[in-house]
Amino acid sequence: MSFSPLLQQLINALRCLPGVGPKSAQRMALHLLERERDNARQLAGALLQAVEQIGECQQCRTLSETPVCDICSDSERDAGLVCVLESPVDLLAIEQSGGFQGVYFVLKGHLSPIDGIGPEDLGIPQLLDRIEQGGIRELILATNPTVEGEATAHYITGQIAREDIRITRIAHGVPVGGELEFVDGGTLAHALAGRRVINRDVS
Amino acid sequence: MSFSPLLQQLINALRCLPGVGPKSAQRMALHLLERERDNARQLAGALLQAVEQIGECQQCRTLSETPVCDICSDSERDAGLVCVLESPVDLLAIEQSGGFQGVYFVLKGHLSPIDGIGPEDLGIPQLLDRIEQGGIRELILATNPTVEGEATAHYITGQIAREDIRITRIAHGVPVGGELEFVDGGTLAHALAGRRVINRDVS
Ligand SMILES: [Zn+2]
Ligand SMILES: [Zn+2]
Repeated sequence: MSFSPLLQQLINALRCLPGVGPKSAQRMALHLLERERDNARQLAGALLQAVEQIGECQQCRTLSETPVCDICSDSERDAGLVCVLESPVDLLAIEQSGGFQGVYFVLKGHLSPIDGIGPEDLGIPQLLDRIEQGGIRELILATNPTVEGEATAHYITGQIAREDIRITRIAHGVPVGGELEFVDGGTLAHALAGRRVINRDVS
Repeated sequence: MSFSPLLQQLINALRCLPGVGPKSAQRMALHLLERERDNARQLAGALLQAVEQIGECQQCRTLSETPVCDICSDSERDAGLVCVLESPVDLLAIEQSGGFQGVYFVLKGHLSPIDGIGPEDLGIPQLLDRIEQGGIRELILATNPTVEGEATAHYITGQIAREDIRITRIAHGVPVGGELEFVDGGTLAHALAGRRVINRDVS
C-alpha cells in the first residue's frame, strides 16, 4: 500500500527522531492525524522556535537560547571545577544525578580522524584558552569510556601545560564501552565521586 | 535541572507522540538540536502541511488529502466487499497483509456509551445509507476482538435490514483481546480468509 503523498512525507520526516523506525513513524503519523491535530500543530511550532532560537553557550558550548547558559551564569556554581563532556545529553544526565556543583565544557563529539573531526571541531583550543586564563582548579574528563572518548581525554591531557590543575577522569561505575546518557543517576553520582587523577597528584 | 523555556517547550510538545515518555522526549529534543536541525525544520513543515491538508475520505472516512481516497477511487477494487474497521491504522495493517481486494469503512473508534460515543460519532448512519443504496455483497466486520469491538459489530449487524448481504466477522488468528494493528500480516491474511458469516448463510 502506498500512502498519500502528504502522509508519506510526514512518515518520512518522523524518521529523523532517534529510535523511530518505519513502523513507529507510521503509527505516530496516523495517531497525530486521528487524535492530536492541535498537538501536532504545537509540535511544529515548538520545533521551528527551538531550531531558530536555540544556539550554543559561548562559554560551555551546550545548547542555550541565551549567549551564556543558565549554568555558566549561575554564581552559585563552582567555576573552578569543569566537567568536560561529549554532548548536551551527557550534561543532562549528570545534572539529573544531582551531585555536581561545578560547570561544564561540551565538546559535541570526540576526536575522529577518519571522519575529519579534529580538536578545532570540538572547541578544544577554546577550552585550553580558558584553562590558560587560570581559575580552574580541576578538570574532570567525562568523555565516554569508549576508545574514542579515551583518546579524546588523552589528547586533552597532553595539551595542558599548567601544573596547578588537577585532571581527573570519571572511573567507577560507568560500564566500559557504554554511553553516559544511558547510565542511571546513582551510578553517575558514584562515578563522579570515585574519579581519579590521571596526570599527577596535586591534591 | 530545568531546561531553558524553549527546550522545555519542545520536550513537552514531543510528548504528544505515542510511546514517547519524558526521557525519550528529552533525548529526541537534544538529538534534533544537536544533529538534525534541517530535518527538524522539515518535520515541522510536514506536520503543518499534513494537519492542514489531510482530511477524511467522503466515502470511507479514512485519512485522505483528496475528497475520495485512493482506495475508494480505484476501479480495480471490489466495491461490493466492504471491510469495517475501527481505525486507519487497522486499514494500513490489512493493506499490508496484501490479501484484501475490497474497500473499507473506517469507524474511527467503537461504541462507548460511557465516553458518550454513539453510532453517529462512528458514521454508522452513513454506513447504513450506503448499504441501503445496494451494491454491497458482503460486509466484513473487522472491529477489534475486544468487548467494545464486539459490541460495535453486534450493533451494526442489528441495524441491517437487507437480507441480501452477507455479514461476516474476521475470526481465526487474531488473538482475543488483541488489537489488529499489532498483528502480523500473515495472521491477518489468515483471519480474513477464515472469516465466518454471523447473520445467516446467503452463500
Ligand atoms: Zn554554558
Ligand atoms: Zn475512501
